[in-house]
Amino acid sequence: MERRRFVRSAGFAGVLAAGVAPALVHAQVNVRWRLASSFPKSLDTLTGATELFAAKISDMSGGRFQIAVHGGGELMPPGEVVDGVQKGAVEVAHTAPYYFVGKDETFALGCAIPFGLNARQTNAWMYEGNGLKLMREFYRGYNIVNFPGGNTGAQMGGWYRKELKSLADMKGLKMRIAGLAGRVMERLGVVTQSIPGSELYAALEKGTVDAAEWVGPYDDQKLGLAKVAPYYAYPSWWEGGPECDFLINSKAWDALPKEYQAMVETAACLAHTDMLAKYDARNPKALKELVGSGVHLFRFPRDAMDAAFKESQALFSEISARNPRWKKIYEDLAAFRRDQNLWFRVAEAGFDDFMQSRRDL
Amino acid sequence: MERRRFVRSAGFAGVLAAGVAPALVHAQVNVRWRLASSFPKSLDTLTGATELFAAKISDMSGGRFQIAVHGGGELMPPGEVVDGVQKGAVEVAHTAPYYFVGKDETFALGCAIPFGLNARQTNAWMYEGNGLKLMREFYRGYNIVNFPGGNTGAQMGGWYRKELKSLADMKGLKMRIAGLAGRVMERLGVVTQSIPGSELYAALEKGTVDAAEWVGPYDDQKLGLAKVAPYYAYPSWWEGGPECDFLINSKAWDALPKEYQAMVETAACLAHTDMLAKYDARNPKALKELVGSGVHLFRFPRDAMDAAFKESQALFSEISARNPRWKKIYEDLAAFRRDQNLWFRVAEAGFDDFMQSRRDL
Repeated sequence: MERRRFVRSAGFAGVLAAGVAPALVHAQVNVRWRLASSFPKSLDTLTGATELFAAKISDMSGGRFQIAVHGGGELMPPGEVVDGVQKGAVEVAHTAPYYFVGKDETFALGCAIPFGLNARQTNAWMYEGNGLKLMREFYRGYNIVNFPGGNTGAQMGGWYRKELKSLADMKGLKMRIAGLAGRVMERLGVVTQSIPGSELYAALEKGTVDAAEWVGPYDDQKLGLAKVAPYYAYPSWWEGGPECDFLINSKAWDALPKEYQAMVETAACLAHTDMLAKYDARNPKALKELVGSGVHLFRFPRDAMDAAFKESQALFSEISARNPRWKKIYEDLAAFRRDQNLWFRVAEAGFDDFMQSRRDL
Repeated sequence: MERRRFVRSAGFAGVLAAGVAPALVHAQVNVRWRLASSFPKSLDTLTGATELFAAKISDMSGGRFQIAVHGGGELMPPGEVVDGVQKGAVEVAHTAPYYFVGKDETFALGCAIPFGLNARQTNAWMYEGNGLKLMREFYRGYNIVNFPGGNTGAQMGGWYRKELKSLADMKGLKMRIAGLAGRVMERLGVVTQSIPGSELYAALEKGTVDAAEWVGPYDDQKLGLAKVAPYYAYPSWWEGGPECDFLINSKAWDALPKEYQAMVETAACLAHTDMLAKYDARNPKALKELVGSGVHLFRFPRDAMDAAFKESQALFSEISARNPRWKKIYEDLAAFRRDQNLWFRVAEAGFDDFMQSRRDL
């Protein structure tokens, strides 16, 4: 990809020739990027982050740096956006990196792994721990520079035709679930399936599958699965705080003026923070409406979570043994997680537990 | 304050006269602001947010928008920064707005109140709920435009010469604590005191006070209070997620080009998000070191928290009866809080509780 694809300069020379002091007048170049999202526009909280990102960059640059946002599937299949950015077909993608564990499990470490970090802990690891630094190293192999670009918070544990009472109920369960979570589920005897979101309702109605996982109340409500699978589990132990990322082609990044690079960084952070705020603000109403319409909430059985935890650790050890990129980053994440849970047990849990216990609030 | 105090224009006319198309070359004005912090530079996580804010704005503007950062007390007393911004002595302040409850209790609603929102819930209320909108309305009366500018997360409940075993132990306790928390403490029989941070050690050693509250492990460790008050309580029920703010003089704000306004907004959000990440990443090590050096952690007694909760609600009702600014915003916050705790009980607590229960992590 050539530099002129990214940068259409206004010509500094003309300004300087006019005798205007460069310290006082600065020529900003025009830049046009295309963004490919992995998400359909119907998931407006996810795609809202891309729109906010593009709008703020436009505002900061006085309209000179424009990013055209394309929803999932418009420019390329949602599962091919990493290839698209790597090859330079688009300058930037917005995705949940764990979709790409088929290429390398390491992608999931920058997004979510079973029993990983919650949303706040992920931020601490990314912004202040080694998370972003290590993931940047990894993404260099794909000609990509990554930025945190949203988080859903802890997700729900999926929709079930029958309530799970214990680990035993998971044997033979046909569930729509993918990625590392799917691999852990298989170790528990679950038969995992891959079904497009649009076909989920029919598959659950017919019993082709017994269960399916999606996101949380706000997004799930739109699928209307309550009628065919009214048992709604919490939490998603495989998605304690999944992070979305902006993935930027490294040549496109290098060609940006420093000013625009800083705009990308800050606009990404606003989009990142705003997405979680949107989910947190919108989920309660959706949850109340779901429960009001007859959905039965249930907590994932403790023995099933313990077994899933054990199998997750075993799976991660196996991956570490054969994938040095995973091993290096996972070990850093695991040490960080240990400390985070030590600290979150104290002041955070002390405050939250009390507040959640006051039913008179 | 005159417009030229803020803006030293480079002169669009000269550029246009030179015949350069304005769509391609844009003259950016030079702006110099001064920021007064309420925090001493020794609290590097708090003041780090102001440095990051200024650095990113400089980067994005190519050095044309500069903010000189001044630590607490350098330009004015830490408790006078609201006056300073209101009068235009500085363009921007960085503070914890609950310091200003003496002017109006409403300031605390944009920062922290006893049994308020945690850090994530505060973000949800600010960015997606009505929080920022309502606080902006309030700040308009002070010629101020405010932006979230950091959060410490749930704080610790202070240092005590003796462990509190129950509510009864609070009667007659001499404690260094201020603001709305101090007023609630007084209702529980605590004798509140105002002592500068620098004199805390001596006051605790001599028994002038029995207890003092500060922030959390990372900041508290620097004070070295463990030797004179080794009992360390959690959580701070009065600071579940206190927000710091950037407070900007509204004339200075209005005089900014739109591009710079957008830069302020996104840089503030990066500083905001980064501060919490820093606290979360740094608190665990400090907590481990404190406990390793002989500090005794204890959970705030349940009956004391229940009594404090009840007195807080009574205090808030009294304030609502005489302060319509508080009433309007508090009612919105309280309704939001109810929904937030409903939702956080489910997926978030379900995930966090499990993770915190796995001592083998």
